[in-house]
Amino acid sequence: MSERGDSAEPLIHGEEFDTSPTGQAETGLDEDDRLKPAFLNAVLDAVEDGDSERARDLVSPLHPADIADLLELAPAERRGAVAAALGDLVGAEVLSELNDYVREDLIGDLAPEQVAEFAAELDTDDAVAMIEDMEEADQQAVLDALDPEDRAAIQSALSYPEESAGRLMQRDLVAVPEHMTVGQVIDYLRDNDDLTRDFWEIFVVDAAHKPIGTCQLSWVLTCPRGIAMADLMRREQTLIPVDMDQEEVALRFQKYALISAAVVDAGGRLVGMITVDDVVHIIAEEAGEDILRLSGAGEGDINQPILMTVRTRLVWLVVNLGTAMIAASVVGLFEKTIEHLALLAALMGIVSGMGGNAGTQTLAVMVRAIATNQVTSSNTWRMIVREFRIAVTNGSVLGVLIGIGSYLIYGQPGLSLVFATAILLNNMVAGLAGVLIPVTLDRSNIDPAVSSAVFVTMMTDSLGFLTFLGLATIFLT
Amino acid sequence: MSERGDSAEPLIHGEEFDTSPTGQAETGLDEDDRLKPAFLNAVLDAVEDGDSERARDLVSPLHPADIADLLELAPAERRGAVAAALGDLVGAEVLSELNDYVREDLIGDLAPEQVAEFAAELDTDDAVAMIEDMEEADQQAVLDALDPEDRAAIQSALSYPEESAGRLMQRDLVAVPEHMTVGQVIDYLRDNDDLTRDFWEIFVVDAAHKPIGTCQLSWVLTCPRGIAMADLMRREQTLIPVDMDQEEVALRFQKYALISAAVVDAGGRLVGMITVDDVVHIIAEEAGEDILRLSGAGEGDINQPILMTVRTRLVWLVVNLGTAMIAASVVGLFEKTIEHLALLAALMGIVSGMGGNAGTQTLAVMVRAIATNQVTSSNTWRMIVREFRIAVTNGSVLGVLIGIGSYLIYGQPGLSLVFATAILLNNMVAGLAGVLIPVTLDRSNIDPAVSSAVFVTMMTDSLGFLTFLGLATIFLT
Repeated sequence: MSERGDSAEPLIHGEEFDTSPTGQAETGLDEDDRLKPAFLNAVLDAVEDGDSERARDLVSPLHPADIADLLELAPAERRGAVAAALGDLVGAEVLSELNDYVREDLIGDLAPEQVAEFAAELDTDDAVAMIEDMEEADQQAVLDALDPEDRAAIQSALSYPEESAGRLMQRDLVAVPEHMTVGQVIDYLRDNDDLTRDFWEIFVVDAAHKPIGTCQLSWVLTCPRGIAMADLMRREQTLIPVDMDQEEVALRFQKYALISAAVVDAGGRLVGMITVDDVVHIIAEEAGEDILRLSGAGEGDINQPILMTVRTRLVWLVVNLGTAMIAASVVGLFEKTIEHLALLAALMGIVSGMGGNAGTQTLAVMVRAIATNQVTSSNTWRMIVREFRIAVTNGSVLGVLIGIGSYLIYGQPGLSLVFATAILLNNMVAGLAGVLIPVTLDRSNIDPAVSSAVFVTMMTDSLGFLTFLGLATIFLT
Repeated sequence: MSERGDSAEPLIHGEEFDTSPTGQAETGLDEDDRLKPAFLNAVLDAVEDGDSERARDLVSPLHPADIADLLELAPAERRGAVAAALGDLVGAEVLSELNDYVREDLIGDLAPEQVAEFAAELDTDDAVAMIEDMEEADQQAVLDALDPEDRAAIQSALSYPEESAGRLMQRDLVAVPEHMTVGQVIDYLRDNDDLTRDFWEIFVVDAAHKPIGTCQLSWVLTCPRGIAMADLMRREQTLIPVDMDQEEVALRFQKYALISAAVVDAGGRLVGMITVDDVVHIIAEEAGEDILRLSGAGEGDINQPILMTVRTRLVWLVVNLGTAMIAASVVGLFEKTIEHLALLAALMGIVSGMGGNAGTQTLAVMVRAIATNQVTSSNTWRMIVREFRIAVTNGSVLGVLIGIGSYLIYGQPGLSLVFATAILLNNMVAGLAGVLIPVTLDRSNIDPAVSSAVFVTMMTDSLGFLTFLGLATIFLT
C-alpha cells in the first residue's frame, strides 16, 4: 500500500517548474506528458547494447501509464526486446494500460501461466480487459492457470456481454448493513485484511443485499463513532444495471459527476462497483470517436494492424463511390449544357462544395448533441427551425457574395443570378438534411455518426448539381 | 450531509428494472437518462396553469443535473416562468450544471444579492464558473454581496487565467504534516467542523506547505490508529501547476486515472485541489470538440444565440469558398478539354470526392492521435509510412474498380486508364496531405483540428482536378 520512491521529492510532470530537481529531466516527459524522443532513443540504445540495467534505470521512475506509452512508441519489431530487457517493470499495470493491439502482440509470446500471474495481480475489470480479446483456447489456458477464486471472478465477468457494466465492474467492494455505526464500520475495515484497499464509497445494503444508500469515505472520517450508517448515508443513489452498455455507464458517470457507483443485477442486488477511473477513458473514447465514425475511419487506432485499417476504410470509400456516381450521373444529364458553356463545369463544384461544408457543420453539431443525449422530441423541432434559419442566413450571405463576385469576374448577370440562387438553395438543402438525416437515423436506432455523412453528401452533391445546372439549362441556354 | 428521500427505495434510472416501484415512471427519465417529453410537457402545463405546487411535486425527485436539463429543454421564452415556479428547486447546484448560455439568460434577471447567495453555496470552482462570464459590473456587484471569505476565494480564483487549473480548483482541502498518525488525522477531521466534507484524498505537506505525499481515504480507514501518515502515503504524486491549461489537466487526470490531485503554485506550495468530477465534463468536451472544429462548427453549442453561431460558421464557409475558387480555377484551365469531352465534367467530381473522403479519414485519425498526445517525433515517420501504404492500397483497389467499371460503361480504354490513374494519384495526395498538414500545423502550435481540413480539401480538390483533366488533355484530346 505504501509505495516509497527513492527520493522524498514529489515527481512534478511538465516543464513549468524548473525549481524541482526531480522534474522533467529525470522523468523524460515533455510538457504534454509525452515521452521525449531523446529519452525513448536512450532506452532503445541501451536495449540494443544489451545493457538491460541502464534501460531499467532510465525507465524505473516512470508511471506505468508512461511505460505503456514507451512500448507503444517503440518500433513494433523492437517491442519484444524492450519488454524483455525491462523485465518486471512491465508488470500487470503496464499491460492493462497498453493499447489492445500492442498488448495482444506482446502477450502472444508469453506462456499462459505468466499471463495468469499478471491477471491475478489486477482488479477484475483490468484482468478481464487483458484477456477478453484472446483466442478462446489461449483464454482457457490462462483461466486454468488462475487460482479458483480469481478464475471464478473473471469467468463471471466474462459471462456478461462485451462492453457492458458487468465487464467494467470490480467485485471487491465494501458493503455494510445500515444499523452499523461509524465506529463499527471502521473497526470492520481495520480487522479485515482481505478487503480491497482501493475504494471511495461504502455501500449500505439491506438483508437481501440490495443497496439502500451510499456513503462517502470523507463522511465516515469526519463523523463521531456513534453515528449509524443509516443516518449518514445518502439514500438517493445512481445505480448501474449490470447489463448496461458501457457508453451509457460513462454518460451516467459524467452527467451525475459520480466517483463510484453500485452495480446491481436484475433482482436489484449489489453485485459489483464501478469507479470513475475505470470509465474516464471510455468517456474520452466515446466522445472522440464520433469524428472517426463521421469520416469513416473506423476505430482510428494508430496501432491497428494495417490490413484491418485498410479494410475498414475501403468499405467506407466504396460506399461513398456509390454516392459520387449518383452525383456524376446528375451532371451527366447536363452534358449538352456543359458543352455549350464549359465554365459551368468549373463553377458547379463551388455549389456542391459549399453545400457540403454547410451540411457537415450542421451534421457535426447534431451528431454531438445526439451523442450527449441533448436531443429529445421536446427540442427536435426547435433544432430544425434553428438550423434552417442559420442555413437561410448563411446561404443568403454567400449567395450575394458569390453573385457579386462572379458578376465582377464574368460580367454575365444571368449566370451570377443562377449561381447565387443555387448556392442559397443548396445551403437550405444542407441545413435540412444535416438535421433530419441524423435525427431520423437515431430514431431508427442507427448510429447517426456512422451513416449520416453519406446521405448528407449525396443530397448536397446531387441537388447542388441539379439546381445549378438545371437553372443554367433553363435560363442560360 | 445526510439527505434523506421520502422513500427508502433507491432511485433506479432506466427501464431495465421494472421491479423498482420508484424507477422510471416517477423520475420521468428515459433509458438514456433524458427527460421524457411527456414529463416535460406535464411540468410546462403545470407552470402555464399557474399550479406551481404541481410543477414542484413533479420536479422535486429529480437530480440537479436533470433539473438543469429540464430548463434547457424548455422553450427559451418559458424558462424564466419555469424557474420562477420551481423556486428553490432551482438552486446553486442546478445553476452550476446549466449550459452557460441558458444560465446567463436566467441569471440576467436575478439581483446580484441572489446570485451571491447561490455562489456562496457552491464550491469555489463552481461559483467561479457561474460568475466568470458575467459583465464586469455585474460580477463586481455579486462579489460585493458576498461575505469577505467567499469573496477572497473567488477573487483569487479569478486572478488565474481563464481555463486554467487555478479556476478549476477548490481551496477547501485536507492537508496534514507527515508526522501525524492515522488516529490523530481522524481526530482532527472529527473535531474540525469547518473542514470540507467532500474530499477523496488527504495531502501530506512539509513545513513549507509543499505536498510530499498523497493518501487515499480508504488507506486511512483500513489502517490502525498508530501508523504515521509518512508510512501510509504514496510519495509519487501527480501535481498540477496552478497555471496549467484545463485541457492538459483533463488529459493528465485521464492518463494517470486520478481521483483528485494537488494544485501547486510556482514555488511548489499546495494551493488547491482538483477532483475528477470537476474535470470529467472537460475530458468529454475536449474529446468531442475536434469533430466540431474539423467541420468549422465552432463550439457546436445548441443553446448558443443564433447570431453567434451564424458568424462562426460563416467565417469558415467563406474561407472554404476561397479554396473552392482555387479548385474551380484549376478546372477553368481545362475548359477546352471539357468542351471537347463533357463527360469529363461528370467524372472529375468522383476523382476529387474520393480523394477528399480518403483525406478526411487520415485527417480524423491524425487529429485524434495528436489531441490525445500519441504523436511525437518518435513515431511521426512511422505514421507517414503507414498512411501512405494505406493510401496506395486503397487507391489501387479503387482505381482498378473504377477503371473496370468505367470501361464497362463507356467502352473507352484510354478514358478508363486516365480515370484509374487519377484516382490512385489523388489517394496518394490525400494520404500524404492528411498526415503532413496536421503534423506541420501542430508543430507550429496551430490547432490541427481547426485548420487542417481547409488545406487537405484544397489539395485533394485541386490536385484531383489537375491530374484527371491534365492526363485527359494529354492522352485523350
